[in-house]
Amino acid sequence: MKSYVIGVDLGGTKIATAVMDREGKIKGKNIELTQILGGPEVVIGQMIRMTRLTLSKAKVGLSQIKGIGIGAAGPLNIMTGIIIAPPNLPGWHNVQLIRPFQKEFKTPVFLDNDANAAALGEWKFGAGRGCKNMVYLTISTGIGGGIIIGGKLYRGTNYNAGEIGHMTIDPEGPLCGCGIRGCLEAHSSGTAIARWAREALSKDRRRRTGIVNSQQSIVNSPQRTKKTMDYGLWTKKKRQKIKGSGSLILELAKGDLKKVSAELVFQAAKKGDRKALEVVRKSAEFLGIGVANVINVFNPQRVVLGGGVTKAGSLLFKPVREVAYKRAMPALAKVVEIVPAKLGDDVGIIGAATLVLTEDRR
Amino acid sequence: MKSYVIGVDLGGTKIATAVMDREGKIKGKNIELTQILGGPEVVIGQMIRMTRLTLSKAKVGLSQIKGIGIGAAGPLNIMTGIIIAPPNLPGWHNVQLIRPFQKEFKTPVFLDNDANAAALGEWKFGAGRGCKNMVYLTISTGIGGGIIIGGKLYRGTNYNAGEIGHMTIDPEGPLCGCGIRGCLEAHSSGTAIARWAREALSKDRRRRTGIVNSQQSIVNSPQRTKKTMDYGLWTKKKRQKIKGSGSLILELAKGDLKKVSAELVFQAAKKGDRKALEVVRKSAEFLGIGVANVINVFNPQRVVLGGGVTKAGSLLFKPVREVAYKRAMPALAKVVEIVPAKLGDDVGIIGAATLVLTEDRR
Repeated sequence: MKSYVIGVDLGGTKIATAVMDREGKIKGKNIELTQILGGPEVVIGQMIRMTRLTLSKAKVGLSQIKGIGIGAAGPLNIMTGIIIAPPNLPGWHNVQLIRPFQKEFKTPVFLDNDANAAALGEWKFGAGRGCKNMVYLTISTGIGGGIIIGGKLYRGTNYNAGEIGHMTIDPEGPLCGCGIRGCLEAHSSGTAIARWAREALSKDRRRRTGIVNSQQSIVNSPQRTKKTMDYGLWTKKKRQKIKGSGSLILELAKGDLKKVSAELVFQAAKKGDRKALEVVRKSAEFLGIGVANVINVFNPQRVVLGGGVTKAGSLLFKPVREVAYKRAMPALAKVVEIVPAKLGDDVGIIGAATLVLTEDRR
Repeated sequence: MKSYVIGVDLGGTKIATAVMDREGKIKGKNIELTQILGGPEVVIGQMIRMTRLTLSKAKVGLSQIKGIGIGAAGPLNIMTGIIIAPPNLPGWHNVQLIRPFQKEFKTPVFLDNDANAAALGEWKFGAGRGCKNMVYLTISTGIGGGIIIGGKLYRGTNYNAGEIGHMTIDPEGPLCGCGIRGCLEAHSSGTAIARWAREALSKDRRRRTGIVNSQQSIVNSPQRTKKTMDYGLWTKKKRQKIKGSGSLILELAKGDLKKVSAELVFQAAKKGDRKALEVVRKSAEFLGIGVANVINVFNPQRVVLGGGVTKAGSLLFKPVREVAYKRAMPALAKVVEIVPAKLGDDVGIIGAATLVLTEDRR
């Protein structure tokens, strides 16, 4: 009996492979660093070798395999199996990914973008179980989305639906990596959180060291205490002391603004650091706006939030829910749950493997 | 043979009824002012009487009717046929609308909200013909939306999907009728256009008559000419002259700010009035942002724009397309068309009638 499926998660940093049963249980998995410098041929070879390795680890024969699902960053063409030009795999242009797998394993192979695969995985085996209509958002370096409608993945006209991270939520907002100003991703991704923190810290540092351009920012600043009013008169020693005590974020980053990351911001926030809490609150509120938009447009039963940033837990979910439920229309707010993803780090491989179990191509 | 369907469009101002064939051709129609003061019972009686009238006008017998579709403003429950509490029908609370029709005509009756019905009508017989995935936006007093996915109306978990007008596009933007700040509707609806115009005109009037609060607005103002610099010294006559020449919008509104409407703004804009053109451009650019968001989320084949405001034609569509194509992700922008609706004022009745022809309830 073909009781198992294979999931392959191709990332710019890591490759993961898994053998999974039809109930979403992983029977064996492998994780390796992507041999990115070797180019497509080497990486595809690595993926195939890892797949074989995982099969033997799981003690499952090829005859028991229903098919292979591969998740990778877009843009890609799910019908032809071609990876077009993903930003996380430099040098990959129009790489045929499914044919080498078909040739090697003589089994059906499915390719889809990683956010779609993750949405499908969460819907079938995770936080979206039992939903008819669900939207999944992954919040990590960027923000991606996957849409389940009527119990099926909705892919759109050329398989690019769900670019929820590139919804404009403030046309005057920060510049996004995509070149457009004001995307949700530029407000609430891990990258954005680190940027907000760096901005707040460097503003703070300028203020503390007396390098402040705008009069207003001193006058209205909560920093206007006796201690900070004598700006311009700092000794080097004094300045260093203040610099260190400015925020726990900077302390965790060992004083190096470049080392400030979303993870450090959350670490500092969890310890009660005021500035970190402000940054988290701000980015979470913007995420709440994005979630409200998703609710107003889709009227889903559940919005599932996954990805590295959501590891922050209630620090993130509380303000997100607060804003989203306030901004969504009442009739839609009352039927939707905003919940954390359940599959954790396995979402990539489980999602990819699930592609085989729900193989419709709408 | 049951070759005909009936469409009933219930509005706060007008009721329209039509008999339509299966190809979307109207065989007879009636329009009357809604007897709104009579309350639900009187209005339902009026709708039934009008339906009978239209049948005889179209020379179609009840035996030839496949069913009746009714479009009305939400919130409503399409499964029970109950109108919950629409803002345009004051005093209507939980009114059972389909049962009286079933009783009277002994034929299947379908109820849906007017934006959904219109989307379905445009998809089946108008600008969305042949599309698999289409989003319809109606831009009039408010902004409503209807979503076609995989050739079917997508209604959402409790039939409220498509509240695209209440997507936040700028959290610091104007206050919307729904009580939330920054909705698309508060930026680009007919109501919003009239408000932008009134704001621009009254600012202008304050400036011209010397009642200006902020110093900056005079210093940086293009109005800083010799003529406007001697503020405070206006004679009554002089002031009136300037007031009249401020903008064609105000002239068309006979000097009464309260009479300024989106229609007058477009009239003035078409005659080249600078202020009117600015207002149109601004609201159209915001609409372009909304359309870009719709494209990024749905990856549709077509976005159809209908409703009173779209009668402005290229004055609206040019900036909308410009902004939407710039802000949508390239892979999604290249497969989508942004087109005007085709059914004009008949969209309500055609849409309602189409409910009978595509009776799935997803």
